[in-house]
Amino acid sequence: MAEAIDFYFDFSSPYGYLAAERIDAIGQKHGRQVIWRPFLIGVVFKATGGEPLLNIPLKGDYARTDLERAARLLGVKFTLPSPFPFMSVAASRAFYWLDDQDPGLARDFAKAVYRASFTEGRDMSAAAAVVSVAAELGVDGEALSAALQDQAVKDRLRAEVEEAIARGVFGSPFIMVDGEPFWGHDRLDHVDRWIETGGW
Amino acid sequence: MAEAIDFYFDFSSPYGYLAAERIDAIGQKHGRQVIWRPFLIGVVFKATGGEPLLNIPLKGDYARTDLERAARLLGVKFTLPSPFPFMSVAASRAFYWLDDQDPGLARDFAKAVYRASFTEGRDMSAAAAVVSVAAELGVDGEALSAALQDQAVKDRLRAEVEEAIARGVFGSPFIMVDGEPFWGHDRLDHVDRWIETGGW
Repeated sequence: MAEAIDFYFDFSSPYGYLAAERIDAIGQKHGRQVIWRPFLIGVVFKATGGEPLLNIPLKGDYARTDLERAARLLGVKFTLPSPFPFMSVAASRAFYWLDDQDPGLARDFAKAVYRASFTEGRDMSAAAAVVSVAAELGVDGEALSAALQDQAVKDRLRAEVEEAIARGVFGSPFIMVDGEPFWGHDRLDHVDRWIETGGW
Repeated sequence: MAEAIDFYFDFSSPYGYLAAERIDAIGQKHGRQVIWRPFLIGVVFKATGGEPLLNIPLKGDYARTDLERAARLLGVKFTLPSPFPFMSVAASRAFYWLDDQDPGLARDFAKAVYRASFTEGRDMSAAAAVVSVAAELGVDGEALSAALQDQAVKDRLRAEVEEAIARGVFGSPFIMVDGEPFWGHDRLDHVDRWIETGGW
């Protein structure tokens, strides 16, 4: 069976949201499984000295323009949540807890969190907000609330973030397929072509 | 007449080199003049806190992979000059001095400098190297050497860099067309489409 596509993203990454709206179609087109892997960009920034894109002088203003333009081209809604950036720890923990039970549900949850943030502008940093979105998908709120405090769930996310960094993931979104790294929603055409051609 | 495309770039920018290999074809396709405008990314970084891409942990290693892959896809040679990054002041001053006399010659010079750096790996930081490349295009070496020390030429470049920053240019390459900003060689498809459709 063909190797899966690893899709790394941070829930607070607007370009991650844009990629999340396209990545499954690319996987389907090529008969490749897409493994969704949220990580914490803030932890990576401690290693790389990076900082949130929209806080950077000039670049931040441009990014707002570019994000809105890219979203229109893709045909999806786009807004920035407030506050922005936000802590994505709760959403990421919830994702992996769900993923261990039902990867399809975890993916639906990830898309729902992204859309709550980047189409409705909702603040998805708090556990309660994450539980609320999961509940709309039929997830037991009490069980999820408990899981978010569970040391094993915390450790699971920590291990995922460490593994992502060890693999060279430094930004969101980040795609790995057939051993090849691609950074940015603007490399999805390369990802598509790379799989189709076997590389160039 | 349709508005020109402003093509901002730093001579030491490898993604600028890739864009330089495509931008004129986009201009021709749409009957738009392309105005080449070298600037100094180092001056911009003082304002934005940016730093040379390839020096950044993780991101630098990835950029080497991405540059080589993008160059192969574009069908152009690619190597990194040594040292890298390098001072592009002499090349930029030479460009504007030539541009005031013959914009077509200045553009040929810019492409020749880019290719000397990024296909042959030559060090284009010194005035002598810049004069040598210009001489291959028939430019008088003594006159150019004198121009590189001319205060008016120095002031011309300084004014161009200041104007670029005032227009929001924060990276290389950077394209402005019909009032719309585009950053990165990876936005050239958007530039092409923006001109074709009148925006979206």
